[in-house]
Amino acid sequence: MTEKPLILVTNDDGINAPGIRTLIRIMNTFGEVVVVAPDSPQSGMGHAITLNSTLYAKQVYIDDGPQKEYSCSGTPADCVKLAIREILDKKPDLCVSGINHGSNSSINVIYSGTMSAAIEAGIEGIPAIGFSLLDYEWHANFENSIPFIKTITEKALKHNIPNDVVLNVNIPNISKEDIKGIKVCRQAKANWVEEFDKRKTPQGKDYYWLTGKFVNLDGGEDTDEWALEHHYVSVVPVQFDLTAHLHIKTLNTWNFK
Amino acid sequence: MTEKPLILVTNDDGINAPGIRTLIRIMNTFGEVVVVAPDSPQSGMGHAITLNSTLYAKQVYIDDGPQKEYSCSGTPADCVKLAIREILDKKPDLCVSGINHGSNSSINVIYSGTMSAAIEAGIEGIPAIGFSLLDYEWHANFENSIPFIKTITEKALKHNIPNDVVLNVNIPNISKEDIKGIKVCRQAKANWVEEFDKRKTPQGKDYYWLTGKFVNLDGGEDTDEWALEHHYVSVVPVQFDLTAHLHIKTLNTWNFK
Repeated sequence: MTEKPLILVTNDDGINAPGIRTLIRIMNTFGEVVVVAPDSPQSGMGHAITLNSTLYAKQVYIDDGPQKEYSCSGTPADCVKLAIREILDKKPDLCVSGINHGSNSSINVIYSGTMSAAIEAGIEGIPAIGFSLLDYEWHANFENSIPFIKTITEKALKHNIPNDVVLNVNIPNISKEDIKGIKVCRQAKANWVEEFDKRKTPQGKDYYWLTGKFVNLDGGEDTDEWALEHHYVSVVPVQFDLTAHLHIKTLNTWNFK
Repeated sequence: MTEKPLILVTNDDGINAPGIRTLIRIMNTFGEVVVVAPDSPQSGMGHAITLNSTLYAKQVYIDDGPQKEYSCSGTPADCVKLAIREILDKKPDLCVSGINHGSNSSINVIYSGTMSAAIEAGIEGIPAIGFSLLDYEWHANFENSIPFIKTITEKALKHNIPNDVVLNVNIPNISKEDIKGIKVCRQAKANWVEEFDKRKTPQGKDYYWLTGKFVNLDGGEDTDEWALEHHYVSVVPVQFDLTAHLHIKTLNTWNFK
């Protein structure tokens, strides 16, 4: 690549979140940056898209810098669609999403707006990476993530991410000196055990808050959970062909006609 | 299984949709049915969950029959979580989602609320199937689907769906006599080419409607798209481990430290 790469930056915590502000600063050192991100937080939106209502997008000026920025009323997946079809003049060379405030490791990839934006870009044939820091706080310390995000972005631009794959990167919330390195992993088999907090409205109607405990059921040492617990940055190659190819044979033994 | 199986029924078109009403009637012939479904349409919600607002659920009476029904203010994935943790006394033997008004074949599985409900059940270790009819109309003719849904449910209860796999079933919108049979398939490589319909509000502000054309890029004869075009019901085994296992090796050649 001789020209400066065109980099689309998005997230799910909203265009004002400290995580995306850090990611924009990093990406400005790699190429021409266009930001298209939700105007409000969209955590837990999964791969939602806006079918039954209208979408708005407008250019905004938040921080100094060479980047162009647009805030959008839709979901992370909507932002990527709108960027590609309406806002950008050409296909971006890379799409990065994040830095998410909180983990998107293991099963969280399914619920993650950050990763759905990256996956949406991947479906469109754009190399894409989602970055997440294991700290849910709004004022998390993103500084420790910077060298790892730089290394991974550099490698991705140099080697090319395989077709039909996007990268899910999670970064432990510890000082950069304590991070042991970057590990390529598989998604751990883990899930959430929900606990609904049942309450009553002032009018006496029952309602619930969704809360839960994260449970890792996977003893493997090749998983993202293992890597993160052992102070590594985890990189999982994620695919959007959800076919369980090995089980096509199993189902064929059911003898459908 | 000697006792009657406990079957959880949900969908993404809302508890009043004709598709779920048909599915409830079918499931009543197989076991004890509990319905927990959204109180309003949730199409395109992907795997969204409700983190930042409250959830309501209440028992409702819609059609005659032995089923118990609850409508819920959340997404399809919320409905499954709430059913398992709060509403049901024991883990269901099967979760069925649908019948969706419209296709969830190929890449649509990613955006589908119907399939996210099935996947949520799968994550919880519950055998699960999403059913969709290739007709977006509210008053679609679901009668032709009935024998195929019965066959697939029967086989699933008899043979057990493999662990960590859920079934994505799509049914062509033709008369049952014209359907050639049931085919186990892989997800076709296809995507949507969005076309945003840009308009102005009466106040002169730009806004967009998301529209698009579905494009099948996959010439394979083993895909769900091929099966549906050739008048077969398609069954795709879907997994929620999104790791692109084959590419762990590729990424390791990037020499991360």
